[in-house]
Amino acid sequence: MARVVDLRDKLSLFSEHWSPKVVATLNDYEVKVVKVKGEFVWHSHTDTDELFLVIDGSLTIRLPDGDAVLGPGQLFVVPRGVEHCPVAAEEASLLLIEPAGVVNTGEAGGELTAPHDTTLLDD
Amino acid sequence: MARVVDLRDKLSLFSEHWSPKVVATLNDYEVKVVKVKGEFVWHSHTDTDELFLVIDGSLTIRLPDGDAVLGPGQLFVVPRGVEHCPVAAEEASLLLIEPAGVVNTGEAGGELTAPHDTTLLDD
Repeated sequence: MARVVDLRDKLSLFSEHWSPKVVATLNDYEVKVVKVKGEFVWHSHTDTDELFLVIDGSLTIRLPDGDAVLGPGQLFVVPRGVEHCPVAAEEASLLLIEPAGVVNTGEAGGELTAPHDTTLLDD
Repeated sequence: MARVVDLRDKLSLFSEHWSPKVVATLNDYEVKVVKVKGEFVWHSHTDTDELFLVIDGSLTIRLPDGDAVLGPGQLFVVPRGVEHCPVAAEEASLLLIEPAGVVNTGEAGGELTAPHDTTLLDD
């Protein structure tokens, strides 16, 4: 049986940036928490939308048509195929939801590509 | 292009209980906000898991094996096919994520069955 997941408790268990951790699954989707700081890479996900929900801090998602700026309790869905670049001047904590198997850097790859991390997923 | 969705702004736009409003879509999933108070009905969803995230207040999800009690920033995924009954002694505000087309009362039906409400979904 699934357990109650406290998002800030999960976030307290790690400190690295740009390395999403799976904390729950929903059918074939994964719910992840991530800490971010600085600028990520421009990338896109060809086959899926991607949901960002800010838990703490502020996140800017650079997009071809301008920036989406999110604070706590605000979410944004990047449509599939749309290039985007997340940026956070100060550390921010996010919830991400996307299908299992999505790679954080999408089609771009590179050194910020994170492994699939289920170490914070309860039994 | 999708817009930034402020969850509490969306919640400020209605007052009724047990009537989820779609605020964003993620592929073929829907992100909904809902206000709840009192006791819902025991029901299940045969074909899908269902994610509950508490925004404000406290939610108890009664389950066959006991209660899951959630406060703000805590989430719980009810596995497909598992009977559950959400209960909130005081008004609470929730985020729900599930595939489009899921009916709130699942297999149970009854007077608390809510229509599919996309009136708060931005263009």
